[in-house]
Amino acid sequence: MAQTESSTIIAQLRKILGPDDVATDPSELLVYECDAIAMHKARPLAVLFPRTTDQVSQAVKLLHDNRIPFGPRGAGTGLSSGALALGCEEGQRSVIIEMARMNQIIEIDYANHRAIVQPGLINIKLSQAVAARGYYYAPDPSSQTACTIGGNVAENAGGPHCLKYGATTNHILGLEVVLPTGEIVNLGGGGADQVGYDLLGTFVGSEGTFGIVTRIVVRLTRSPQTVITLLADFIDLYDAGRAVSAIIAAGILPAALEMIDIVTINAVEDSIYAAGYPRDAAACLIVELDGLKAGIDAQARLATSICMEHHARSVHEAVDETERKKLWAGRKGAFGALGRVSPDLFVQDAVVPRTKLPRVLAGIYEIGDKYKLKLSTVFHAGDGNLHPNLNFDGRNEDEVSRVMAASKEIMKLCVDAGGSISGEHGVGADKIDYMPMIFDQASLNAMLAVKDVFNPLGLCNPGKAVPTQRMCKEYKKGFVFD
Amino acid sequence: MAQTESSTIIAQLRKILGPDDVATDPSELLVYECDAIAMHKARPLAVLFPRTTDQVSQAVKLLHDNRIPFGPRGAGTGLSSGALALGCEEGQRSVIIEMARMNQIIEIDYANHRAIVQPGLINIKLSQAVAARGYYYAPDPSSQTACTIGGNVAENAGGPHCLKYGATTNHILGLEVVLPTGEIVNLGGGGADQVGYDLLGTFVGSEGTFGIVTRIVVRLTRSPQTVITLLADFIDLYDAGRAVSAIIAAGILPAALEMIDIVTINAVEDSIYAAGYPRDAAACLIVELDGLKAGIDAQARLATSICMEHHARSVHEAVDETERKKLWAGRKGAFGALGRVSPDLFVQDAVVPRTKLPRVLAGIYEIGDKYKLKLSTVFHAGDGNLHPNLNFDGRNEDEVSRVMAASKEIMKLCVDAGGSISGEHGVGADKIDYMPMIFDQASLNAMLAVKDVFNPLGLCNPGKAVPTQRMCKEYKKGFVFD
Repeated sequence: MAQTESSTIIAQLRKILGPDDVATDPSELLVYECDAIAMHKARPLAVLFPRTTDQVSQAVKLLHDNRIPFGPRGAGTGLSSGALALGCEEGQRSVIIEMARMNQIIEIDYANHRAIVQPGLINIKLSQAVAARGYYYAPDPSSQTACTIGGNVAENAGGPHCLKYGATTNHILGLEVVLPTGEIVNLGGGGADQVGYDLLGTFVGSEGTFGIVTRIVVRLTRSPQTVITLLADFIDLYDAGRAVSAIIAAGILPAALEMIDIVTINAVEDSIYAAGYPRDAAACLIVELDGLKAGIDAQARLATSICMEHHARSVHEAVDETERKKLWAGRKGAFGALGRVSPDLFVQDAVVPRTKLPRVLAGIYEIGDKYKLKLSTVFHAGDGNLHPNLNFDGRNEDEVSRVMAASKEIMKLCVDAGGSISGEHGVGADKIDYMPMIFDQASLNAMLAVKDVFNPLGLCNPGKAVPTQRMCKEYKKGFVFD
Repeated sequence: MAQTESSTIIAQLRKILGPDDVATDPSELLVYECDAIAMHKARPLAVLFPRTTDQVSQAVKLLHDNRIPFGPRGAGTGLSSGALALGCEEGQRSVIIEMARMNQIIEIDYANHRAIVQPGLINIKLSQAVAARGYYYAPDPSSQTACTIGGNVAENAGGPHCLKYGATTNHILGLEVVLPTGEIVNLGGGGADQVGYDLLGTFVGSEGTFGIVTRIVVRLTRSPQTVITLLADFIDLYDAGRAVSAIIAAGILPAALEMIDIVTINAVEDSIYAAGYPRDAAACLIVELDGLKAGIDAQARLATSICMEHHARSVHEAVDETERKKLWAGRKGAFGALGRVSPDLFVQDAVVPRTKLPRVLAGIYEIGDKYKLKLSTVFHAGDGNLHPNLNFDGRNEDEVSRVMAASKEIMKLCVDAGGSISGEHGVGADKIDYMPMIFDQASLNAMLAVKDVFNPLGLCNPGKAVPTQRMCKEYKKGFVFD
């Protein structure tokens, strides 16, 4: 786009949003060049900060009519470069629509267990708002103190507790959406079961490529009467993996079942998140059980004895809420803690059948050794949702190329084990090249045809989720590796 | 289609399927004129009985290339006329593809809690096959001894236990599908979480309008250690309704929470399904709790005291598995029992927010009185999923027109209460005219655009699920009210 055109559009956007709600200064744009994967970067043309659905609609219509690509962004905590400001073609820049200022709780309806919120609301703030009445919002990504519910909808975010409670899609009852043309539509009944085709379910997890969410009806979950959190400590990582399968096979459905390996344990213990994990354990499991007190006590005893049968050194029950929170702060702060080990951290996300965990874990560590990378794992073991983390220094070109190669090999290992390339972080730009590993062209074409229904010009969040024939080579050039 | 053309196509179908696997004799076609709503009828051109995916694909391709409409059918137990052989235009007949002979269990994978089945498998046969190993298939429509899992996928069928375990869509991990062109595709990872757009979720519940399912990967659920089934007996229907809300509000999530009114109770007690329900109760609740013994005992005590606080006359716990099965046989046989009261029965299906149950129930009985109809209710109270049943005689034209009018008024009542026109039976042909009650034209257009992706010519199961602008007037003429 020529300089003059660009300035005209910016002026029109300022008229729609207000003069201070359109950022174009390079220093302001810097923070919007990437999400939590700092490896991929792209400088936006501008960043918009709308405050109303109508402003989103008008801005989108203007951009659409001028054929300028754009995409939504929440808190930028994503781990698949889903909020990266890619263009539709080489050198093209796009506009980021930052939803942070649409962050209100509009309505809480306790009797029907639901709330209506704006997309920029930080995940944990909803749970905090309803806690006194005995409710919470179940999906809890590790980034929940920063990430937004709108971003969670785009990526169909998971979290430790989606083992029992399901991912974001299971908690979304309705959406108000600005389509890529600027048209405003409502999806889902907002409470009652769905009839007609499940457009609501299709929209959730479409990674911002079907439009921009401006209002969300969510399900509220009743807080459990009792929560018991166990820390089981293993000197053999594979024993821990086998204990995971055995707990589920025994008919227990924990609220969460997490695994943390020795590298992660020590990174956490060296950090402000120090949780009291045993530094010499090959792996720890966090097993959380919730429900009515009597039943949960029995489940905790059973889970403990299964861990001991699988050679746990000890199983410790958090004695109070303070200790329980500390155990979780360590787990949820693990990525931050690992980030201190090296300048850069690449958090992978793959999923395998639970029974394949021990074998796949062994393979992942072998790949780490082969590429001489510092590799750790911390993950949702109950779901088989692995997060291998690769520590590296982005200034070291050779190390970066080894990270990319190892990463691809890990994906292949998981896919070959009957798994998939993402458990909860989405495909984004980061994994778009891996999609043909798990889908044939007919399936990808069907997905693109559905995308065309919502986003026929491809202007809304280009280069994400599903590779297009036309763009699969070109979009990469939009990246600025600096 | 002219007679000669027709016979040529039939000959070609016989070549694909085998001479005995294509029915065209009027006496054979009779049973395929309707589903479990005998009110709507349409005579098919032919009924095909394929045995392999390849036969389905070839037959569909032939029909598609000759522009002959067709649609899948399972056991014909549907309650929304979803399997009705409608054509695309007036007087046009269509071909039914009856999946009953593709009824095998292909694989059971206990370690990963899943099975691969053919679409014609009867729902309960899967649970029976895995019961000895401590598993079951959770979705349990009342018709589960007859209905097929393929039909359940088409309608996203529910059942009493979907309160806790979710409807069919929550239990489907992958599908092999013959598209309306005859092309065979696979949707879903068959186990791992989904990446890319959720085409699997969109397909489930698309009512046979997106293609024909030929293979299904389902989730197996671990059988609970303990099941407690309570029968609570109320002399005031609205007390029973309030008890439903109070049980859920207390933080209990029963495996099932069903309500049966006095008319249904007496119909059941007069039938072979006699379950020992008290004939003078205004309503009974069946409250089923499952899980680990210790926790469940406590929940059962709490549910019992909530019922007593809401003026239950008694709360009885089934003493053994025999009595438990009897209580359920009564509930699941209720539609059959009501069918004995009059020549015809129209089972409605609507859903309202649980807190609105008492008010909506009162309104439903008023509508029954207004139209002088024998009306009863038996339903999934925990979900707010109502099933008002209208007994009538199809030979009495005046009564039929009162049933249709009452039915529409009941729908409007539920929608006005913030509900929807179907909880679990689908829209089919029966409710297609009600869709504009709950969706604006922009939303319907978005659904039709997604339908066009799968079924651009509209040949696959026309006249179902979502009204088309072009056909919404015409398809009705395909009905033969005889």
